[in-house]
Amino acid sequence: MAGPLIRIEDAADPRIAEFRDIRERDLTGRQGRFIAEGTVVLRVLSQVHAASTNANPQTPSARFVAEKLLLLENRVDGLEDLLAAFPEEVPVYVARSALLDAIAGFPLHRGVLALGRREAQPENHTFLGCLPETALVVAACGISNHDNIGGIFRNAAALGADAVLLDETCCDPLYRKALRVSVGGVMKVPYRRGNAIEANLAALAEAGFSILALSPAGRSEIGDVAASGRVALVLGTEGEGLSPSVLQRFDTARIAQSPSMDSLNVGVAGGIALYTLARKLGRI
Amino acid sequence: MAGPLIRIEDAADPRIAEFRDIRERDLTGRQGRFIAEGTVVLRVLSQVHAASTNANPQTPSARFVAEKLLLLENRVDGLEDLLAAFPEEVPVYVARSALLDAIAGFPLHRGVLALGRREAQPENHTFLGCLPETALVVAACGISNHDNIGGIFRNAAALGADAVLLDETCCDPLYRKALRVSVGGVMKVPYRRGNAIEANLAALAEAGFSILALSPAGRSEIGDVAASGRVALVLGTEGEGLSPSVLQRFDTARIAQSPSMDSLNVGVAGGIALYTLARKLGRI
Repeated sequence: MAGPLIRIEDAADPRIAEFRDIRERDLTGRQGRFIAEGTVVLRVLSQVHAASTNANPQTPSARFVAEKLLLLENRVDGLEDLLAAFPEEVPVYVARSALLDAIAGFPLHRGVLALGRREAQPENHTFLGCLPETALVVAACGISNHDNIGGIFRNAAALGADAVLLDETCCDPLYRKALRVSVGGVMKVPYRRGNAIEANLAALAEAGFSILALSPAGRSEIGDVAASGRVALVLGTEGEGLSPSVLQRFDTARIAQSPSMDSLNVGVAGGIALYTLARKLGRI
Repeated sequence: MAGPLIRIEDAADPRIAEFRDIRERDLTGRQGRFIAEGTVVLRVLSQVHAASTNANPQTPSARFVAEKLLLLENRVDGLEDLLAAFPEEVPVYVARSALLDAIAGFPLHRGVLALGRREAQPENHTFLGCLPETALVVAACGISNHDNIGGIFRNAAALGADAVLLDETCCDPLYRKALRVSVGGVMKVPYRRGNAIEANLAALAEAGFSILALSPAGRSEIGDVAASGRVALVLGTEGEGLSPSVLQRFDTARIAQSPSMDSLNVGVAGGIALYTLARKLGRI
């Protein structure tokens, strides 16, 4: 059970400083800290917190720790189960509605927030080396839209992907909205963010992954691709897509589409491709 | 080419009354009229406008007509191609940025708007009767989120669906945001909105459609379903899903998923199912 409820009476209280002006904070560097919002995402945080605390320190998957909670006072009564899922060293602050809105800087209808921390991620070599012999990884390039990043993680979690590699031009999946759209998937699927896409693909190739880039101009239809062992699916942006050098250097696949339409949303296209590969690999 | 540019100097000008307070208008009955926003959606409107004008009046697919355009003055120079795609009887109003924002009631960064009209839709019997012998229809129930409705139409257009049937509890796909998310797909795929889901499914069955309801508890995996002839895919909401009576009465399919995750987003799940069925039916 999380710690006792601590009532906050002043928006300037230093104990809840990390929750002040949440939207401003979304735009600045956060050194691994993030705001989780809503009961569904907090439930996932409680699960990964417990798993992180008990994890073997030699395993490479990211660890997430809940540092504190901030709740709307009149929502506490319905949240006993959720609070019971956090250990007692996690303090639980509560505030009245007007004060909570003043802290956050906008009306917070959900009224359920946590401050989380993600521990440092290992390098690609370590990260990829620990994946199983049959593995499915999503490698994303240039996805800067929070909805799309969140959608990619929701798909990855639901369709059995083992990991996600984001290049340095992807947005941070720990942004509040991306985390919410992912339904907590960002905390479930191990991921690494950094490097240029070329470096990430080179690391995947070195770790024995077959690399398949998804593009409307792909040379094979995704359903016809043979997949076994370690497979990485590469996703680019909807507009510019993947660079010609990536498309020339690696195998490419398309999703069959009606000729009248430009292309599917990257979340849907990625979902179709991931589903198809995950079925071929026996991951789902 | 659309008509000559007409400069608007007054937010109260009756010629652009339909563009005033767009967000308020989104919430009220609109008698078939809708606001289209952005160059991509307006491009689709110009195409369906032309096709509607030339269409055989006996064909059942919905017709869309552009009634007027309203553009940010300093965007006109880059839009010659788009304006050329509308006929001259469509008036083009232009306004300065501050005035345009005052008309719309919020900052309109895109600055490209059209008032469109959708002509009355035929009854289910006529609507479905005109579809081809091999056809794929999406029947949606209770989808009230504009992003999800837009996503369903984008998928339907991209993956070769012949029509969409929305029950009366789905939101109007002509809402500005749904239309935008659909990338104009709402105007490309013939659709009908109305009736309870049971009536729509009965009309589909009567028109010779095999009915397949998508549900996390579906009895077959979607990849294993045999599909031929006329097939209707039924989609419900993410939360409550389809009613037990629908799930008991018709064939059901699930998308294989990792056991740790509740379910995919309805747009992604629908996209995977639609892709799988469209491939089996040779629609894409």
